[in-house]
Amino acid sequence: MDIGFIGLGGMGRAMAENILKAGHRLRVWNRSRERAEPLAALGAQVVDTPAAAFAGDAVFSMLADDAAARAVFDASLLEQAPRDLVHVNMATVSVALAEALAHDHAARGIHYVAAPVMGRPDVAAAAKLTIVAAGPAEAIDRVQPVLDAIGQKTWRLGSLPQHANVVKLAANFTLAAAVETLGEASALLAGHGVAMTDFLDVITSSAFPGPVYAGYGKLIAQDSYEPAQFKARLGLKDVRLALAAADACTTPLPVASVVRDSLLDALAHGEGDMDFAVLGRVAARRAGR
Amino acid sequence: MDIGFIGLGGMGRAMAENILKAGHRLRVWNRSRERAEPLAALGAQVVDTPAAAFAGDAVFSMLADDAAARAVFDASLLEQAPRDLVHVNMATVSVALAEALAHDHAARGIHYVAAPVMGRPDVAAAAKLTIVAAGPAEAIDRVQPVLDAIGQKTWRLGSLPQHANVVKLAANFTLAAAVETLGEASALLAGHGVAMTDFLDVITSSAFPGPVYAGYGKLIAQDSYEPAQFKARLGLKDVRLALAAADACTTPLPVASVVRDSLLDALAHGEGDMDFAVLGRVAARRAGR
Amino acid sequence: MDIGFIGLGGMGRAMAENILKAGHRLRVWNRSRERAEPLAALGAQVVDTPAAAFAGDAVFSMLADDAAARAVFDASLLEQAPRDLVHVNMATVSVALAEALAHDHAARGIHYVAAPVMGRPDVAAAAKLTIVAAGPAEAIDRVQPVLDAIGQKTWRLGSLPQHANVVKLAANFTLAAAVETLGEASALLAGHGVAMTDFLDVITSSAFPGPVYAGYGKLIAQDSYEPAQFKARLGLKDVRLALAAADACTTPLPVASVVRDSLLDALAHGEGDMDFAVLGRVAARRAGR
Amino acid sequence: MDIGFIGLGGMGRAMAENILKAGHRLRVWNRSRERAEPLAALGAQVVDTPAAAFAGDAVFSMLADDAAARAVFDASLLEQAPRDLVHVNMATVSVALAEALAHDHAARGIHYVAAPVMGRPDVAAAAKLTIVAAGPAEAIDRVQPVLDAIGQKTWRLGSLPQHANVVKLAANFTLAAAVETLGEASALLAGHGVAMTDFLDVITSSAFPGPVYAGYGKLIAQDSYEPAQFKARLGLKDVRLALAAADACTTPLPVASVVRDSLLDALAHGEGDMDFAVLGRVAARRAGR
Repeated sequence: MDIGFIGLGGMGRAMAENILKAGHRLRVWNRSRERAEPLAALGAQVVDTPAAAFAGDAVFSMLADDAAARAVFDASLLEQAPRDLVHVNMATVSVALAEALAHDHAARGIHYVAAPVMGRPDVAAAAKLTIVAAGPAEAIDRVQPVLDAIGQKTWRLGSLPQHANVVKLAANFTLAAAVETLGEASALLAGHGVAMTDFLDVITSSAFPGPVYAGYGKLIAQDSYEPAQFKARLGLKDVRLALAAADACTTPLPVASVVRDSLLDALAHGEGDMDFAVLGRVAARRAGR
Repeated sequence: MDIGFIGLGGMGRAMAENILKAGHRLRVWNRSRERAEPLAALGAQVVDTPAAAFAGDAVFSMLADDAAARAVFDASLLEQAPRDLVHVNMATVSVALAEALAHDHAARGIHYVAAPVMGRPDVAAAAKLTIVAAGPAEAIDRVQPVLDAIGQKTWRLGSLPQHANVVKLAANFTLAAAVETLGEASALLAGHGVAMTDFLDVITSSAFPGPVYAGYGKLIAQDSYEPAQFKARLGLKDVRLALAAADACTTPLPVASVVRDSLLDALAHGEGDMDFAVLGRVAARRAGR
Repeated sequence: MDIGFIGLGGMGRAMAENILKAGHRLRVWNRSRERAEPLAALGAQVVDTPAAAFAGDAVFSMLADDAAARAVFDASLLEQAPRDLVHVNMATVSVALAEALAHDHAARGIHYVAAPVMGRPDVAAAAKLTIVAAGPAEAIDRVQPVLDAIGQKTWRLGSLPQHANVVKLAANFTLAAAVETLGEASALLAGHGVAMTDFLDVITSSAFPGPVYAGYGKLIAQDSYEPAQFKARLGLKDVRLALAAADACTTPLPVASVVRDSLLDALAHGEGDMDFAVLGRVAARRAGR
Repeated sequence: MDIGFIGLGGMGRAMAENILKAGHRLRVWNRSRERAEPLAALGAQVVDTPAAAFAGDAVFSMLADDAAARAVFDASLLEQAPRDLVHVNMATVSVALAEALAHDHAARGIHYVAAPVMGRPDVAAAAKLTIVAAGPAEAIDRVQPVLDAIGQKTWRLGSLPQHANVVKLAANFTLAAAVETLGEASALLAGHGVAMTDFLDVITSSAFPGPVYAGYGKLIAQDSYEPAQFKARLGLKDVRLALAAADACTTPLPVASVVRDSLLDALAHGEGDMDFAVLGRVAARRAGR
């Protein structure tokens, strides 16, 4: 297929590489061109404008946040795009923006698919991402081979693109709550002189298997948060988006508010670029340790 | 071995049966004698006083709460007990009570082992409980064959009995936080018209495998909380104990306070005997649904 | 003085009337012209565009929210305005917008004064508002006679306009926290069968005199929230702005998050147009009453 | 009248002095006798047992906490007391203890009056306390002359003693919430470079007059918490009692939970003996300042 790719941060570049490896033609654009160059060596065509990438059979995008997406996917870009193009937005954006983009694309005959992903850059590099996709079924069918080159599994969530974003934000909120809980539990254990590792052995062997409790728990047990695999400030971004999505449907999320405050505490203490697990240090700090 | 057993609620009776099946002699006591009778049919000797059970090689206990334990394990009981007896307390009690009982037993030459368990009555019946045990190593060694008849695995947490209680309370707090989080996530999803089951499929297949997210999530998705497997009021009891243990070491647990308030809301609405998953209904109620 | 006035809601109209009564010439603009007409009968000139009002010696504005302010005070309006004009923005807007407007006005040689007010429409009608003003000292000096026609006291908070907005939001947060506290206290008292009025008599005669505790407390005691003097949805708007201002300086405000959730609960139950004191009903609902 | 007085801490001693000054005969008892001696110089009779004080026309008590009250007012003390004695308990105790004491006294024909007070030691010394009294009307009538010697006003709250305790705890919760709010507001203001004193001038001149906002606000503005007028650890005791009273009637008090966590943070940082206003420092610490 003839594919465009917009946004080559750590996640985007790994995805773009896997699309190339799968044999597709790829035009790539990034705001700072030097991040695009390594892909040229792999066969991609580096283009100078988002519009040049926003063409062909489908375009994939992975921009940093709502502001970047709003700036790039503006009216003029959509106006010049070929009708029937499929745009697959894999970034974690707000539900409100997803709704607005879906509307704006449809008004111009462009198919908008929301397909946010779960997994860190190393998972993206291994093409093992979990993808939650929503949008017009036919459009998703068309890009499914590309999604298969990026992830290990695509979950289909119906025809309204923003539903994929809601699920992604709910999942990230669940993650944030679990890490905050581990941090608080760690502070409780430390207060009574019990080793966090003993606790983790018990719960990860019984009720709480899986990567989250074992992985973040280990970082908290070691009180070691650098280098970050997933930065606290990115976790805060996701919690803010979850709170905004909940606000939009007048739904209180009290645990999300607690995590938000703990993450603000982390950022205020210069820990924003540390791993999300630094919530363990925040909980310890509250307890004077 | 010659064993006493005190406290024959749903959990206690299942444990006592498994001890009998493993071939041990068993004297059993319960405040209301009729709950003890069925065990007589299996070969147990029903006794009339806690003191008659508090003898032999070892005594196991599974009383409902701190108040029951304080009432039974009083100074006169300990005074008349044989020196060198091992008392294994499997109930979820406060850290403060565990410390007090450990002190009082030691003062009279009785070995006190805290061995709270994880698992519901059906798990107890299947002898598959997870046991966290702490206390004098030699005492635990002596009763290990009995623990093996009750559970599938015993985690050893050192020589201070209360450390087992801290781990148990931290684990239950982790459970409570996960259920509250599922409830809040469910309210967020419903607010945007997304099916809870779609969300559960995604997270239980990726970051959150294991029985907690799948099991409680399913109850919330079905909005079905009766009959309860684990009652909301028992969950509240555990969260209160976690908060008390944290207070004792001046450690804030903000997520635990949130869960406590949600559980109070459940009880205030007559949902105390429903399953712990009723936190999903509480979150929906806050959102006017 | 020759004065423009933009935004004639309940508060704006009362202020505009007092400016007229003080003998100033007034051009008024409102998005829906019919709200402006009654002022014509008092001598105001109704104009058709914001630009026609944004002229003369000074212009005062009282628009509903950030979105309205952004829409009206855009680049083209500022571009055509006379240099040296003083713009006094009396609305409660976000700190971020106040900073942006201050910057945009200064870039075009227009003086921007933030002068948010405290008091409800009846206080505005009586010209008894409390005004907190910040911006260039000389500009405030110039409009002080007009401010004196609107309020009973102007507090000067330095030369940075956004400082006035921060103080206003902190004051509204303080109010919101007090009302939430009264609501929770009321639920506690009711739970023990104690009359809220007895409690109010005690605290308003001792530690908590003043209009807030007596006034909102009385509404809660009567469980009577209509007609609203200050609507719950406006209170939520202010709490959101306080949280946003705190987020911008990485400052957790846990009490504000609690109030936000209670207000979302109110709106979700169709109580958004009831008086702010409806937080008492929310607290009672949480307690199953 | 012939009066006994039990408990001579800072508050108790001031009250006892005022009773003496009013011309009553006074027998005083304190656990450590040396605190009682200064009253002997003023004419009081120092006695060696609580029982010796628990006699005469009426006995007043002001013990530190529930544990002290339970230890002193036990079955044997009540058993030997004269029938028809009036016991006025002025301490801040739990609602549960108030109920229990009311029951135990009534069972032995002793009149139990709960009369907790509002005000610090300097207010007690000036005989300006605010008293909230509940219990048998005739009993209160009998001791009213003594209450008039201690306080400036007695509020009567009906015949159930515990109602006075509920009002007292609700009032202290209101105070705690106001101080926490001031602390959070201070952190918000500081984050934007606004002086706390400017904010205080505005709110204490308008919506929030009275001693609480001005007094605690000033301490926070000065970041000066020693010597304490009301210690943070005593504030925490009161918040715990409010939460326990709310728990007993299944009433969530989310703001109280927030204040509790902030106070635990203070104690964990060695600030327990500083003034309650140290909540301002806790809020600043969360914001990294």
